[in-house]
Amino acid sequence: MGKTLAVSPLAPASFPDLPVIDGVRFATTAAGVRYQGRTDVMLAELAPGSTVAGAFTRSATRAAPVLDCQAKIGGASDAGAAILVNSGNANAFTGRGGVTAVEAITAAVAEVCDIPQSRVFTSSTGVIGEPLPHDRITAVLSDLKDQLSPDSISEAAKAIMTTDTFPKGARAEMEIEGKTVSIAGIAKGSGMIAPDMATMLVYIFTDAVVSQPALQAMLSKHTDSTFNCITVDSDTSTSDTLIMAATGASGVDVSENDTFSKALHDLMLNLAHQVVQDGEGATKFVEITVTGAATDTDAKTHALAIANSPLIKTAIAGQDPNWGRVVMAVGKSGAAADRDRLSIRFGDIEVAKDGWRSPNYSEDDAAAHMKGQNIVIGVDVGLGDGKATVWTCDLTHGYIDINADYRS
Amino acid sequence: MGKTLAVSPLAPASFPDLPVIDGVRFATTAAGVRYQGRTDVMLAELAPGSTVAGAFTRSATRAAPVLDCQAKIGGASDAGAAILVNSGNANAFTGRGGVTAVEAITAAVAEVCDIPQSRVFTSSTGVIGEPLPHDRITAVLSDLKDQLSPDSISEAAKAIMTTDTFPKGARAEMEIEGKTVSIAGIAKGSGMIAPDMATMLVYIFTDAVVSQPALQAMLSKHTDSTFNCITVDSDTSTSDTLIMAATGASGVDVSENDTFSKALHDLMLNLAHQVVQDGEGATKFVEITVTGAATDTDAKTHALAIANSPLIKTAIAGQDPNWGRVVMAVGKSGAAADRDRLSIRFGDIEVAKDGWRSPNYSEDDAAAHMKGQNIVIGVDVGLGDGKATVWTCDLTHGYIDINADYRS
Repeated sequence: MGKTLAVSPLAPASFPDLPVIDGVRFATTAAGVRYQGRTDVMLAELAPGSTVAGAFTRSATRAAPVLDCQAKIGGASDAGAAILVNSGNANAFTGRGGVTAVEAITAAVAEVCDIPQSRVFTSSTGVIGEPLPHDRITAVLSDLKDQLSPDSISEAAKAIMTTDTFPKGARAEMEIEGKTVSIAGIAKGSGMIAPDMATMLVYIFTDAVVSQPALQAMLSKHTDSTFNCITVDSDTSTSDTLIMAATGASGVDVSENDTFSKALHDLMLNLAHQVVQDGEGATKFVEITVTGAATDTDAKTHALAIANSPLIKTAIAGQDPNWGRVVMAVGKSGAAADRDRLSIRFGDIEVAKDGWRSPNYSEDDAAAHMKGQNIVIGVDVGLGDGKATVWTCDLTHGYIDINADYRS
Repeated sequence: MGKTLAVSPLAPASFPDLPVIDGVRFATTAAGVRYQGRTDVMLAELAPGSTVAGAFTRSATRAAPVLDCQAKIGGASDAGAAILVNSGNANAFTGRGGVTAVEAITAAVAEVCDIPQSRVFTSSTGVIGEPLPHDRITAVLSDLKDQLSPDSISEAAKAIMTTDTFPKGARAEMEIEGKTVSIAGIAKGSGMIAPDMATMLVYIFTDAVVSQPALQAMLSKHTDSTFNCITVDSDTSTSDTLIMAATGASGVDVSENDTFSKALHDLMLNLAHQVVQDGEGATKFVEITVTGAATDTDAKTHALAIANSPLIKTAIAGQDPNWGRVVMAVGKSGAAADRDRLSIRFGDIEVAKDGWRSPNYSEDDAAAHMKGQNIVIGVDVGLGDGKATVWTCDLTHGYIDINADYRS
């Protein structure tokens, strides 16, 4: 990260005005873990009685803080809790030293915040394989504790960024039982993004009352249709972590509430889309919907084969309606397909039908769609009712620039 | 293909002097299928008694000529045979029209060469989804027949090129039973290259006597450890075809001969390496060996996860010994791994051992290895005896340049 990246052309116009979540306070500071001249540590303190749920990478080489979170996440406690996140160093593949670092940080946070160590959740994101200088983090904890404020969530969103070109936040507010319930979420992520995992770092807070099992169930269900449906580069992080906390401060129990669940889903999808919109080097936001597959699983397999194909991603970067490459990706995916039943749309334009170029196909119309910033690809496999939608971005010179030089 | 690509920096110094294979004659011409100012059709005529074997893409959307070859390849016949290949148009996803085109071409070749239509094998390579103007091919068949010559194999290697920057050939000659047996092979391919298939177009000829079942068995076995172990971009063609013919002209039966089998393997590996060396935009040739996996299959899964990772391929392009990304790829591959038993080498340099950076690791030494043209990555998983080696290239701006603009 020796250079400053231009803000993604797909970035939202501004960071949203996130609601204050009663029961959560934030603080950030510049601990100099790796980066200079910017914040790199954030602390979120959760009030006693908060429930906490999470979803994590399934990587076989996942990092020490991920393993530590996974061991703790299901535990019930009326004590408060804390989330400590650093950027710049992932504390991944750091052997015994990585475990020692997590132990040191969680013990220090527990002491400063006066909570059990089992209620301290940490995440680290950044370079893999470098020892984490955890003393730089423990040295700033007292200052962080003193600065805690319910208003600082936007600062927290900035402190957790790595190659992100903009901070990511999303909000939801709703009336339930005559009271206002709020959700605020922040995320980081732009490379090493692939689905089938709880991708990247995401922290979501609500003042609703939600039992831990209900919170976990809701979170896991929506992860499958949001974060697990995006891909930037098919590469899966060793550190992906999604943690959600419900403080209960609103007094409204939403453990079985569909309005809340739907709002949470939409907020998660919003954050997932922002990660794609900050995909390294991205210039196009791409939605791929596969219908007519034998099963939903097959549909997702096809959709991800399309979304991860370097040839399709470069064609989109070149604004080329190269639908032959979509045929290729469906063919290689391994899921059931019949060439002669395949239909393909770019936007509203029917490109191919029944295994051949559509008789009405106009290359000019398709090319016009490809010039837009939002590309929509529809594929009907013609075999059954299975369907899935995934989101990705194009593959450009910007991705090469960023990743051929990340550590220098 | 509106532009001429510079020859790959990894290309061999020159095209090899391929031996004449008694019983095979070649001819090429410029039929104007798509390209202008170059040859784009090649005909190979095989003497009566030749045996023919093949391996083909397993894509669910494979092209009409592939399906036609697969239906014919196992057939026994004492008649001659012919192989007709065009570049510029893949005749893939061309519906009923694609079948009609194959039918028209194979019928015309059969007539011109006076052989059964069941002994005519065709391949088409190039753009997907455009109707193949097969009349341009049938129009030149008489001329091709008149030009057939045993010396024209190097011209054949040129006529089948698409985004290739150099023609690919390999040879083997050996003494068996006091007689000389020869093998000559040609290949094309540089993008849409992924393993687990008989990748690209490859044609191999020998004057040995080999029964059809023995030829097929030998070819299938060696395909698994050669063409199925390379990847340029993880994208699998709809047209991949490997055809081998044994004319028997030498009178030496090698159906059970290990010397011949080994020579054939080496020749296939040579051609496979040349395809990687012509990988679109490639500047580095990368060999990845995984040892210590639970099974050979697991080792190959890990090796391909590394070889197909955009983050690793861009790091190699940037000459960055970013071994943390190797940890990431092993972790995401889905095959068994234990972070704390993992060891990684770049060239002869031990980078990581037992789940942590090696105590002797020198970033300068690793960086020096990465500056070379041949990159060697070794990973030991520490679980068992499974091993695999695969080959790939780096991911550079050149790949984006070529593929964001292929059809223009």
